[in-house]
Amino acid sequence: MLTYEERSKLFTIAEPINGDLTGKAVLSVEQFSRSDLDRFFEEADWMKRIKEQNGSTDILRGKILVNLFYEASTRTDSSFSIAMKRLGGEVHNIVGVQFSSVSKGETLSDTVRVLSGYADLIVLRHHQKGAAAEAALAIHKERTKQGLPNIPLINAGDGVGEHPSQALLDTYTINQKCGGLDDLTVGLVGDLKHGRTVHSLAKLLSLYRNVKLIFVSPESLNMPEELVEELKAKGVQMSVAKDINEVANEADVWYITRVQKERFESEEAYQAVSGSYRVTLDTVASMKPTAIIMHPLPRVGEIDEAVDELPQAVYFEQASNGMYVRMALLSGVLGKW
Amino acid sequence: MLTYEERSKLFTIAEPINGDLTGKAVLSVEQFSRSDLDRFFEEADWMKRIKEQNGSTDILRGKILVNLFYEASTRTDSSFSIAMKRLGGEVHNIVGVQFSSVSKGETLSDTVRVLSGYADLIVLRHHQKGAAAEAALAIHKERTKQGLPNIPLINAGDGVGEHPSQALLDTYTINQKCGGLDDLTVGLVGDLKHGRTVHSLAKLLSLYRNVKLIFVSPESLNMPEELVEELKAKGVQMSVAKDINEVANEADVWYITRVQKERFESEEAYQAVSGSYRVTLDTVASMKPTAIIMHPLPRVGEIDEAVDELPQAVYFEQASNGMYVRMALLSGVLGKW
Amino acid sequence: MLTYEERSKLFTIAEPINGDLTGKAVLSVEQFSRSDLDRFFEEADWMKRIKEQNGSTDILRGKILVNLFYEASTRTDSSFSIAMKRLGGEVHNIVGVQFSSVSKGETLSDTVRVLSGYADLIVLRHHQKGAAAEAALAIHKERTKQGLPNIPLINAGDGVGEHPSQALLDTYTINQKCGGLDDLTVGLVGDLKHGRTVHSLAKLLSLYRNVKLIFVSPESLNMPEELVEELKAKGVQMSVAKDINEVANEADVWYITRVQKERFESEEAYQAVSGSYRVTLDTVASMKPTAIIMHPLPRVGEIDEAVDELPQAVYFEQASNGMYVRMALLSGVLGKW
Repeated sequence: MLTYEERSKLFTIAEPINGDLTGKAVLSVEQFSRSDLDRFFEEADWMKRIKEQNGSTDILRGKILVNLFYEASTRTDSSFSIAMKRLGGEVHNIVGVQFSSVSKGETLSDTVRVLSGYADLIVLRHHQKGAAAEAALAIHKERTKQGLPNIPLINAGDGVGEHPSQALLDTYTINQKCGGLDDLTVGLVGDLKHGRTVHSLAKLLSLYRNVKLIFVSPESLNMPEELVEELKAKGVQMSVAKDINEVANEADVWYITRVQKERFESEEAYQAVSGSYRVTLDTVASMKPTAIIMHPLPRVGEIDEAVDELPQAVYFEQASNGMYVRMALLSGVLGKW
Repeated sequence: MLTYEERSKLFTIAEPINGDLTGKAVLSVEQFSRSDLDRFFEEADWMKRIKEQNGSTDILRGKILVNLFYEASTRTDSSFSIAMKRLGGEVHNIVGVQFSSVSKGETLSDTVRVLSGYADLIVLRHHQKGAAAEAALAIHKERTKQGLPNIPLINAGDGVGEHPSQALLDTYTINQKCGGLDDLTVGLVGDLKHGRTVHSLAKLLSLYRNVKLIFVSPESLNMPEELVEELKAKGVQMSVAKDINEVANEADVWYITRVQKERFESEEAYQAVSGSYRVTLDTVASMKPTAIIMHPLPRVGEIDEAVDELPQAVYFEQASNGMYVRMALLSGVLGKW
Repeated sequence: MLTYEERSKLFTIAEPINGDLTGKAVLSVEQFSRSDLDRFFEEADWMKRIKEQNGSTDILRGKILVNLFYEASTRTDSSFSIAMKRLGGEVHNIVGVQFSSVSKGETLSDTVRVLSGYADLIVLRHHQKGAAAEAALAIHKERTKQGLPNIPLINAGDGVGEHPSQALLDTYTINQKCGGLDDLTVGLVGDLKHGRTVHSLAKLLSLYRNVKLIFVSPESLNMPEELVEELKAKGVQMSVAKDINEVANEADVWYITRVQKERFESEEAYQAVSGSYRVTLDTVASMKPTAIIMHPLPRVGEIDEAVDELPQAVYFEQASNGMYVRMALLSGVLGKW
């Protein structure tokens, strides 16, 4: 538990972005306003152009990123690492930390305090909710004590907590493909109860005008009630469906996530409903021709491979956007916007 | 199984080198002609001079290699990584992929499609034959769909399939040490049945004039019959021996590989013959003074350590050549020849 | 066992520093004289200024470090890696080598001979005492045979043997915080029997004038008798105490290390004494106001977290100094002093 004093300190390092990421901890999508997102998407567009025209730049030459991943995550780890390298910076990867000091019983706070003495920036992936805030606070305390400037930290997923760079790349992709985020109907499909991805995405979408959400999930994996209340209070219109095929033509964006077999009482219970959350060629045939199909990946059968070649399937471009979005984040917290 | 259409697409990305590696997938030694090898050796020589005179260069500044190793392989991984760094490029290593997305059930095709959105080049090591071709095809499809140029892929070993950079460094070493590859007698020793290394080497040697091969292996680990037929058709002269010591004076090059105990019915069966495939000081004393002894490494007793200091022992230089050859490959597929 | 001839060769590559680290193997603190340390601290100060003023430099541009860690060690691995990157060099990390060639039975000597063909410098962590010397010798032999200059190797911990860069960062920190190393009283606390860290530190301190050591440890984990004799012969004054709280006011430097529960006969035996080696706010209240508290980290309860915010607590700065010291070592062996 954080004390009141600790919470106040945390606020000063994880405060609202307000157009400037420099030196800040990026812990939650709730730090971003609509105008922060507008600005952010511009920077990400710029990064995309750098990649396509020159491959790389050197604005972060001499800067060192430590990727501290207590859980392996190829996609997130790789895209942050390569984003940093494309900006001219260097990366030190610490993946699967159970093999090292941590297995000797060191606390997360001690580990990040040490690493903040070596690095210019830390990206943290951890299995416990709140780990990123705890780490950011520990760094802030030690740096303040030593009279040194803060070392920014980016939350790359803290258990069932947040994963802000994922929600940023999702909204960036929708913005890019749909020409904006107002007046859209977005279908969220799969396990909506445990998916931090869909929770963060829904929160960011609530910043936009006239957004409608369609939830398609097994009843036991419904969107959490308190999040539904929060979205309602912000004016988001919501509806629920049992089968994506029944409402396929209603959404501009279909965001598919995985439904894990293990969440069901039996194999039979799973098989009985799994088709309702799966995208096939038939499903796509019922969609609007301009609809896009997204997935945070990895997928395990939720979208048939035959769908990959259709223009609606943008999930691999979405993954590529992850790199541009992370380039924008890294350059932002290091003061290069 | 690949469809006919898929095979045709594959042909266009893994086609014969014909003097230009730019943008191509390097899947098999069969893509190289004799004149491709001549050209390749010149480039590798050039890389050796760069290393010896300047250490590094920066012709690949800003380019990013992803090393995707489903199986760890220190030597191959390290030499590709360091080759890339010596050319001024950057590397992101993904080793032992079982820890990450893949353990969530993602297919190889999905993984490489995502990575091809981040990287300029992928080097793949996988335990299944055909994996490299499958991956190259998946990348090619996705890049074509997105209207982007292809991302080259280098096969760094696909199970019992191919490992072309190993065969290239082996022939490069023979060419360097023997002043050419025509008119040579090469002894291949050890497990000739399962060794993709010796198979690929034999194929490349068959491109040269008046090549004689001597096979020294336990009967149960003989060279596969269909490869023997293929070599015969290309005019390679072949003979078989039971013990390297009986024919030690016949070869210009001795290429030693490991014979695994596990291949034998019993420890006794192994002990009874293992001396016949082992190189000792006595074995070397019977060799031509100009003969060279090679080994793909790691060795586990096939060559006595006392042999290491003799001029005939070139296996550590052979390993060093691996880096020059990989520098030539990397710069080639990225269009820098 | 090394032969006489091998020992002599080893002497030429791991000889006394004598003001010049270029091309040398750094295996032991015993290679450093007092004037070597003076010079070394100046270089480390310089590295600290580079970090604080510019972040990075490029004096090692184009040089490649291989970090070969048979045991994972986040702190040591990270600080060497990032030190190299801050100097403009590149790093290839091989951590947890059990997954690779080594699991195929390759010897350490073979592994480093291969890697010395790729790298400009090797940092080795190994679980066996003497491993670093063996590796340095193997590299030296192969390089000599090939007529090439030596590749330096730095011992980053060889079992119960040495860990010279740790002792260098410890003395550097004391020198920095206390304005010198003469006339100091240093308390060494914890497991003094097995701790290579305290052994190497005591050896380096013995190079200074009027040094007093206080040993605080369970009787079964006392300082080894032969080391005590060696220190006595060098004029070091030593005393022993049972509880840090009884002598807290006597030392200028308190160096705390871990006491592992497993070293005791029972949980009760451990609990009965563990308070005697633990630093609390009360302990610090009894210390000299100018005393400093050090710890090689990771800590697991030996120092209360409440102590972290006090000015006496310098262990995180000590960790940061590890990077500057390693920058000085790396640039030194590559001839950049």
